[in-house]
Amino acid sequence: MTKKNVFQCNCPLARATELLGEPWTLMVLREAFLGTRRFNDFERELGIARNILSSRLRKLVERGVLERCPSRADKRIVEYRLTEAGHELLPVLVGLAQWSGTWLGNCSSAMRFVERDSGREVPRVDLRNADGRVLRAADLAIVPGPGADSTLDHRLRRAVGERG
Amino acid sequence: MTKKNVFQCNCPLARATELLGEPWTLMVLREAFLGTRRFNDFERELGIARNILSSRLRKLVERGVLERCPSRADKRIVEYRLTEAGHELLPVLVGLAQWSGTWLGNCSSAMRFVERDSGREVPRVDLRNADGRVLRAADLAIVPGPGADSTLDHRLRRAVGERG
Repeated sequence: MTKKNVFQCNCPLARATELLGEPWTLMVLREAFLGTRRFNDFERELGIARNILSSRLRKLVERGVLERCPSRADKRIVEYRLTEAGHELLPVLVGLAQWSGTWLGNCSSAMRFVERDSGREVPRVDLRNADGRVLRAADLAIVPGPGADSTLDHRLRRAVGERG
Repeated sequence: MTKKNVFQCNCPLARATELLGEPWTLMVLREAFLGTRRFNDFERELGIARNILSSRLRKLVERGVLERCPSRADKRIVEYRLTEAGHELLPVLVGLAQWSGTWLGNCSSAMRFVERDSGREVPRVDLRNADGRVLRAADLAIVPGPGADSTLDHRLRRAVGERG
């Protein structure tokens, strides 16, 4: 790829990187899942600069992950709530925390994910096939779908060709 | 939290954010999973500036996600390969791409994940309990484990208290 970069193709990971691959964004989402809703509470819980927090919240709202709504307690106060899209990030965030606890050191037993009703530990988030068997990288092929633009299509075809 | 920020506690998501919450890092990992190994190949595939690529690769090596090894073809050439820790990021990356394809627009059918042997589509990465039932955010409690430092412990206890 010359004179342009990968963010100009329609790779879903590129789209995700553009949103989540910024400092703090994953922590803002952690807070949203922990029930934080107001600007000042995000600021206090995270120790984040107001201008950065403001920019991160705006982008998450623009991309449909959070929505701004008036507080039920006081309609003059704005709250940021997870949308359906935001809630659907749960497996990714839990999987990431589990991975980090295992591999990034000093926090393997710091955070536990338990089923609320039973109190049972939640098993590791895995990639599985339709029969429930866990898939490893070698079991998986990443191929262009019908909606791939030409750049992504060429990239993925080349990768499959190199491996196969 | 006053006068300090959340990256000073041992939250696994904070650790993960410090590594992956930087522009480009997730795309460098995409390339690693697609089989890219050499500096110049990462540079060409991504259209990334060399100084940024260099910094991202160095950090991924420091954190044990990639390892530097001599190329089998020419020992003078350095290659970057996924470690076991790196390979274990697969469910997170696939889950993120699936989520992004569904929710971030313009790429829902751009990238397909298929089982190499059968050619079957890989189902969505989900959070499940030990019985295999899909868990939603409301089904999940995030609680401090025995290794939580006092800051994380207080944060998670407060969140549980507010919800419960």
